Amino acid sequence: MRATLGLIQMAMDPDPALNVAAAIHWVRAAAKEGAQIVVLPELFRSQYFCQKEDADLFELAQPLDNEENQRFAALAAELGIVLLLPVFEKRAPGIYHNSMLVIDADGSRAGLYRKMHIPDDPAYYEKYYFTPGDLGFKAFDTRFGKVGTLICWDQWYPEGARTTALLGAQVICCPTAIGWHPYEREEFGTQQRDAWITVQRGHAIASGVYYAAPNRVGFERLVPEQAGIQFWGSSFVCDPQGVMLAQASDDKEEVLLAEMDPGHLEYIRRNWPFLRDRRIDAYGGVTRRYLDEA
Amino acid sequence: MRATLGLIQMAMDPDPALNVAAAIHWVRAAAKEGAQIVVLPELFRSQYFCQKEDADLFELAQPLDNEENQRFAALAAELGIVLLLPVFEKRAPGIYHNSMLVIDADGSRAGLYRKMHIPDDPAYYEKYYFTPGDLGFKAFDTRFGKVGTLICWDQWYPEGARTTALLGAQVICCPTAIGWHPYEREEFGTQQRDAWITVQRGHAIASGVYYAAPNRVGFERLVPEQAGIQFWGSSFVCDPQGVMLAQASDDKEEVLLAEMDPGHLEYIRRNWPFLRDRRIDAYGGVTRRYLDEA
Repeated sequence: MRATLGLIQMAMDPDPALNVAAAIHWVRAAAKEGAQIVVLPELFRSQYFCQKEDADLFELAQPLDNEENQRFAALAAELGIVLLLPVFEKRAPGIYHNSMLVIDADGSRAGLYRKMHIPDDPAYYEKYYFTPGDLGFKAFDTRFGKVGTLICWDQWYPEGARTTALLGAQVICCPTAIGWHPYEREEFGTQQRDAWITVQRGHAIASGVYYAAPNRVGFERLVPEQAGIQFWGSSFVCDPQGVMLAQASDDKEEVLLAEMDPGHLEYIRRNWPFLRDRRIDAYGGVTRRYLDEA
Repeated sequence: MRATLGLIQMAMDPDPALNVAAAIHWVRAAAKEGAQIVVLPELFRSQYFCQKEDADLFELAQPLDNEENQRFAALAAELGIVLLLPVFEKRAPGIYHNSMLVIDADGSRAGLYRKMHIPDDPAYYEKYYFTPGDLGFKAFDTRFGKVGTLICWDQWYPEGARTTALLGAQVICCPTAIGWHPYEREEFGTQQRDAWITVQRGHAIASGVYYAAPNRVGFERLVPEQAGIQFWGSSFVCDPQGVMLAQASDDKEEVLLAEMDPGHLEYIRRNWPFLRDRRIDAYGGVTRRYLDEA
């Protein structure tokens, strides 16, 4: 069954209530345009707080069963859409995850993914906030197809995308929050954004799977003496051969629509039969940190 | 230590002796231009015979220690270059491999790689000729750096590139013979070639490694009633962030030069520290055929 993907590219306000309201607006707009699987950007509820390490910011985390998430579940049911809802999950005092709820089109929970790879770079201090995911890689049955999940930093790891595809995902959805350090943009901006797009298109090609990456836009500076981050948008959907089906601007809020066709996915996999020839007897090294003893 | 890569993009004659002579010419030309690690295209000694299944064509295979390979070893020693020499290896009656000798700059053998992933597609009947490699993925110490090896169809498999990088390769060299079915070129040609480039640049980005892919050019039709293959050249070298350092035409014989700088490799890996955060506890699924029971 074909399905229409809808990716929300949005900018975030300092006030979470306004972001939630904006997200609801955009999800309704996407559904109105025909989207059936709608994906919000990573941590859409807030500005990207990982620009600093501040214990007070754990207050942004919420348990999964909160009123806001119930509201999104009701929205999904009302619109009859699958909704991928990134959340800052409060699991227990001291255990917080960068997670994503997959809400099925009847409002029920299809599943939960917890970001597996946690970065730590200047202005991306995520290791301070997020406990690494313990659920492994995931693909979930939904009304509109089997949906795989990754979050942001996961995007750089072929093992994650591959495992998600082997679980049967027809599309891998990878909400993100990635941008330029303003002081690097002129010299390195083009190649950094290009690397981000290329490695993900590579995952799509290697496993013959649709790939959807919604990102945020806008400039956010949470620490006055720091340079802030210019989020580069450029949300995209590519097909199982890496062909770009839709790509957003690097500076505007928008809804991105693209069709996912399981028939095309199978056509590509038949004509480029990579999955047939995998040398699973020889891949054990991938589970090692480094092969300096080999 | 910096090193200059030299990729040979050439067209093949029906007569192997002429291809060997041409390869020697091109290797000398590359060395003269400063190349220190020279890579020839896959199976450069012959036209792409896998367009048909014909038992007589096993006659093209040679044991590794033949006079021709000794000649190439002497050439490497004379020029003081590392030479990556793709060969159709006769290992034993009934066991033939699509292999590559890595010859060090003193003419000694640095190592041998045997193609791990063997394709079988219309006009690429390699499963008939080539026993799958049994040496695993490889990286070899040479005078000019640690050189990783893949061959053609291997290029589509992130696990192969990742393992090669984890073995310490500074550059992954992947000679290939890939082209268009003439009847597909107009409709699908651009996206097919783009997928080939993209997935390999993705490997470079994911593991922070240089990547070099020499391909052949020219039209070859070994079976009169078939359409033949238009080999698409487009040999390239990209850096550890996937930035294209050099790219060849799709129709001309040429030498492609690019510099490999271990300092730049380390700079990229420090600023995009993907290898640090791999979730090796969660990658076991990659060694499975499909995760339909998971």
